[in-house]
Amino acid sequence: MAQGEASAAVSEARQWGRLMEMASFGAIPGDGVNRACLTPLDRAARRRLIGWAQAAGASISIDDAANLWLRRDGTDPTAAPVLTGSHMDTQPNGGRFDGMYGVIAGLEALSALADAGTVCRRPIEVVAWTNEEGGRFAPGCMGSMSWAGLHPLSAWADVTDPDGVRFAGALAEHLADEADLPRRPLGSKPHAYVEAHIEQGPRLEAEGVDIGVVTGIQGSRWFTVTLSGETAHAGTTPLALRRDAVQDMVRAIGALNALMHDPKDVLRFTVGRILVEPNTSNSVPSKASFTVDFRHPDPAVLLARGDAIPGVVQAAVRDAGVAVHENFHVLPLQFDPAVVGAVEAAAAAEGVSALRLPSGAFHDAQFVAAVCPTGMIFVPCRNGVSHNPAEYATPAHLAAGTRVLTHTLVELAT
Amino acid sequence: MAQGEASAAVSEARQWGRLMEMASFGAIPGDGVNRACLTPLDRAARRRLIGWAQAAGASISIDDAANLWLRRDGTDPTAAPVLTGSHMDTQPNGGRFDGMYGVIAGLEALSALADAGTVCRRPIEVVAWTNEEGGRFAPGCMGSMSWAGLHPLSAWADVTDPDGVRFAGALAEHLADEADLPRRPLGSKPHAYVEAHIEQGPRLEAEGVDIGVVTGIQGSRWFTVTLSGETAHAGTTPLALRRDAVQDMVRAIGALNALMHDPKDVLRFTVGRILVEPNTSNSVPSKASFTVDFRHPDPAVLLARGDAIPGVVQAAVRDAGVAVHENFHVLPLQFDPAVVGAVEAAAAAEGVSALRLPSGAFHDAQFVAAVCPTGMIFVPCRNGVSHNPAEYATPAHLAAGTRVLTHTLVELAT
Repeated sequence: MAQGEASAAVSEARQWGRLMEMASFGAIPGDGVNRACLTPLDRAARRRLIGWAQAAGASISIDDAANLWLRRDGTDPTAAPVLTGSHMDTQPNGGRFDGMYGVIAGLEALSALADAGTVCRRPIEVVAWTNEEGGRFAPGCMGSMSWAGLHPLSAWADVTDPDGVRFAGALAEHLADEADLPRRPLGSKPHAYVEAHIEQGPRLEAEGVDIGVVTGIQGSRWFTVTLSGETAHAGTTPLALRRDAVQDMVRAIGALNALMHDPKDVLRFTVGRILVEPNTSNSVPSKASFTVDFRHPDPAVLLARGDAIPGVVQAAVRDAGVAVHENFHVLPLQFDPAVVGAVEAAAAAEGVSALRLPSGAFHDAQFVAAVCPTGMIFVPCRNGVSHNPAEYATPAHLAAGTRVLTHTLVELAT
Repeated sequence: MAQGEASAAVSEARQWGRLMEMASFGAIPGDGVNRACLTPLDRAARRRLIGWAQAAGASISIDDAANLWLRRDGTDPTAAPVLTGSHMDTQPNGGRFDGMYGVIAGLEALSALADAGTVCRRPIEVVAWTNEEGGRFAPGCMGSMSWAGLHPLSAWADVTDPDGVRFAGALAEHLADEADLPRRPLGSKPHAYVEAHIEQGPRLEAEGVDIGVVTGIQGSRWFTVTLSGETAHAGTTPLALRRDAVQDMVRAIGALNALMHDPKDVLRFTVGRILVEPNTSNSVPSKASFTVDFRHPDPAVLLARGDAIPGVVQAAVRDAGVAVHENFHVLPLQFDPAVVGAVEAAAAAEGVSALRLPSGAFHDAQFVAAVCPTGMIFVPCRNGVSHNPAEYATPAHLAAGTRVLTHTLVELAT
């Protein structure tokens, strides 16, 4: 099998054109995309993907989590498939490449294999995982987590989006709309998984390197902190008689900043979402809730500081009742050395510069790694910006990443 | 003219029944009311008020700000009317008495005058001012401010509610719905204005006094502070590269708490409303805006500390762009000594205990005072609680307040 034949058939122009066409589904000002999972926009983008995949000879199926599968058969029908893919949903104020690049790169690999007439021993499958971002239904990665058997899908049935729509309802509506697609069961046992993605960080660009050979993913813990005080008239209620949830939130965030202080700037701590009730200017707030997104590559730090959050908040507030709920907890992960090695070798064979690095963001690969040997390929993105309309990667970098991906897939499938 | 005849005709049971019926328009759990201005609920409550007023022989009219007028003629058609009233809108999580008591007390005075067959020299008018609360369209008191000629109504045309509805649109819809009512011009020149209201503070109850003779209103300044940073991926972006609007908001509120520190607990400082963008847990916030509600009875303090807000915020933030907009600015007010004296004398004549005190909350009376001699009557409310479903005043206190109001109106109209 000549891996180079297929990777040489990767088309930079075709891939870029498909990415730009996908970006039209949910386009927002400034080249951004707002395409939440399990919406009509999501379905329209999936239909376009299916059309392209069928033209490349792939067979289509969907599983109970609405993960969408594109399959190119191999010569050995009993062989476990080699898997690639990523997700198609975006943040509300997202960009054109986060997630979608990994899906379109997988599709481009299938197209290149078809164009080159390359048939491997193993099947190659491209998967578009449902709800990676968690922007509509939290937490993210529901599709890959449920496929990997780490969480039952039913456990998220009652999670609601900001409009009060239940996850179970949105999923059922989506599956009904795609009832024409063959259904496959959740779960499978691939030979390996390789996910291509933009770096979403500044390092590759800063070092002038084309490809990131990803060694693992830092751990993440997400919390929601809810502070319950009492509303009162802003003009008459003395400070001493108030139970002001916003003032206690300010105390709590201040204390968490101290807990999360890291002179090396490796620790990631973000308060991204705040909701206040009744949220009128002339009422003392009765309720304030905020999210904590905490990540670190060292499991000891992740455990110690994450576990300290409830106590630190409790000690910081003056008046409010405190509830801390942990929504998400994944420990740091090391990818499989054989897959990491295959990616590194493919980059060398394709003649592009490469660098080993850990992932700062989490990805579906985190959960797939529980099922099969897993790795990732990063391409540089401008200024490290992601989750933002300004997110950008060059057509040439995206094509180089796809050539390395195609080379790696053929190598693993041979 | 025997003032006591009319006040003796005040019916505690009728007034309480009307208040409870009004509380059914927009009732929320815990005896609360959510009745925003210029909504179908507001219109339904106004229709009920009009029915009761017509039964008491009053004539009805509406002005360009949708302020609703109920008039009982006097013997001298050339005499300037004596005015009373308040507002019918509530906070989103409001109570049954704030505002509505002053309107129903005025109506009860008209009913008592009718029952007693009392006709004064001057007309007596009851007004329900539009949008006192500012809970749907900020700032509040649009009805009384525009009537008083202090602000042109058109200046608020583009103010939007949380659903994006423009004030001008909501007002036009309301006026179209009430097109059957005679229209009167904005503005008039009453002889005097007396507004009855629950205290919305703890003092009368604490001192065991039936009636507050209100001497004036503390000053209020409202601001919106908007901090503009940049969104980024929460998992990858180092702290040093972030421009996190929420972290700058926490710094700004901390600095404002220090600016607004008052060991005597007379100063009122509230951050009641916060909006964050994009407001997802795993994105660094690009924007955070919060409101400042600042009140004080001393004009020197109000000016010095209010004027310091923009500089204090600017000095406190690390990364974000700062915009501070002042939405509302009224200086402390002293009511007219003749009206204050009339209220105090009426309380004595009615045999109820009374206490002179300033108002902690602001009221439509603040703006009416620019046009004619003005005063207010307070009745105690339980625990000083207002802007809350738990807001409560006893039927007996409410009736005592209305007897004093009726006595004062007859005195001023004679």
